[in-house]
Amino acid sequence: MSTNSSPQSVLFPTILIHGVGLLGGSVARAARKSGACNRVIGVGRKQDKLDQAQALGIIDVGYTELADLQQESIDLVVICTPVDRIAWDVDDLAEHLTKPAIITDVGSTKQNVLDMLSTELPPHLVFVGSHPLAGSEKQGFENSLADLFEDRVTVVTPSESTPEPAIQLVEQFWARLGSRVARMTPHDHDEAVARTSHLPHLAASALALCVGEKLHHLTGSGFRDTTRIAAGDPGIWTAILQENRKAVVSSIDEFTSALTIIRDLIASADRENIEQFLTQAQHSRNKLNETRQPE
Amino acid sequence: MSTNSSPQSVLFPTILIHGVGLLGGSVARAARKSGACNRVIGVGRKQDKLDQAQALGIIDVGYTELADLQQESIDLVVICTPVDRIAWDVDDLAEHLTKPAIITDVGSTKQNVLDMLSTELPPHLVFVGSHPLAGSEKQGFENSLADLFEDRVTVVTPSESTPEPAIQLVEQFWARLGSRVARMTPHDHDEAVARTSHLPHLAASALALCVGEKLHHLTGSGFRDTTRIAAGDPGIWTAILQENRKAVVSSIDEFTSALTIIRDLIASADRENIEQFLTQAQHSRNKLNETRQPE
Repeated sequence: MSTNSSPQSVLFPTILIHGVGLLGGSVARAARKSGACNRVIGVGRKQDKLDQAQALGIIDVGYTELADLQQESIDLVVICTPVDRIAWDVDDLAEHLTKPAIITDVGSTKQNVLDMLSTELPPHLVFVGSHPLAGSEKQGFENSLADLFEDRVTVVTPSESTPEPAIQLVEQFWARLGSRVARMTPHDHDEAVARTSHLPHLAASALALCVGEKLHHLTGSGFRDTTRIAAGDPGIWTAILQENRKAVVSSIDEFTSALTIIRDLIASADRENIEQFLTQAQHSRNKLNETRQPE
Repeated sequence: MSTNSSPQSVLFPTILIHGVGLLGGSVARAARKSGACNRVIGVGRKQDKLDQAQALGIIDVGYTELADLQQESIDLVVICTPVDRIAWDVDDLAEHLTKPAIITDVGSTKQNVLDMLSTELPPHLVFVGSHPLAGSEKQGFENSLADLFEDRVTVVTPSESTPEPAIQLVEQFWARLGSRVARMTPHDHDEAVARTSHLPHLAASALALCVGEKLHHLTGSGFRDTTRIAAGDPGIWTAILQENRKAVVSSIDEFTSALTIIRDLIASADRENIEQFLTQAQHSRNKLNETRQPE
């Protein structure tokens, strides 16, 4: 037997998934499959949904009331609710978790959660933010996948006061689920994903709006690819854009500046600099192909 | 035997492909396969390339000198050179084609060709512009495909003075190659593709430039899809953008206006109207899925 096949230790015996949807269900499945936990508790709004998730083996038990958690010994909480709910959910949980636990999340924006936490957490609880860059256009735990985080990057975003051991445990958790882990400050994370994720969504949406239905027969695969993410859920995206308002606005300003540069080059028929602009963009896009790991 | 299997008549006994690359080679293969022609002549800059295309069965004979065409009887010319070459090539051909022929092209911009034609064509020649919305990221006749135009739209763009029979023959040619044919004025075509094709290319390029290499590890499939076409050939795209300058500039202005609207909504935390903007974009993008034929 290879030494690689020796079982790895359980990181968090019992984990709580708050919000058992596509992401929450996938965390549950991946944590169980990887042996990162022994037991998964789900919290959600609807008991019948939790019962279905339990029947599918995604969770071991499901509660709709946080008060019921007081009978449980929970080691890690993963909050998988929308980004504008996370801080509220952390505050609520703090009132019901009586034993030491680490709390993390899967939200797409990070600084806002810290800003919104109404009070300091009690000393037996530590919050360490996470953002796995993984998702699906499908929704619901029915579509959750045990390998959703494999070969994806998960950003872990401690604040200056987060204890190092708690950070490392959360990093080990995501690594066990197959992620490549990157540590960033919440601010740097938000600035980065404004550009890599939120801005592309807005560009795709604005493009979709600029090309009305009567021009659809004249579109090709380029337009279809460029606008694909505009089909994303408006409610989820409104929350993300709101929560990361400042960085998103500055990324739009940067984008429109780049567009204004190429617009003026085209208007003034500056062939040489048009080609240079496109060549730099091509170079940057080709670098992306070179550096990415397969997904 | 079904009546559908009876062979269709030859539309143009001999066709000339000017520029035997990916598109030219694909027109040649598709025309031969569909029985739209009997014989394919190639014109190009390099005899060794033409000899290779001949060896592959893509063309029957290849010339580097237009003067050699005087011994040939040509029924249809398809110009497959870059958009800023097409008008020059039509003018040059007019001096060497001595028998009646129709000339078309595959260029991505249409009004510029008409504007640049230096003189009226001699009465035995008729120019009818075409733009098959088909392509590939690959280049060269080695990668040409007989089915490249199947289920794709080809826009045919006659001017007001183009004789109707010539228009219909060109439309029949593209239909025989498997295209769905749309007839538009050159101006309307250019306005449309500025939005459906040229603007997405610029949006993808500007996005690629806004996200530097050090952020590439934080990108996901959304960014990759949205920027894919930025990898296109800068030389070809510089020519296209130049030739369709006016419509492209106005499409950029429309796009930045849409971006400014959503920027201001986000900056002012207008949640309701952010969601409405995203919902309209989602609706438009979903319509694209509904209305497109499979490719």
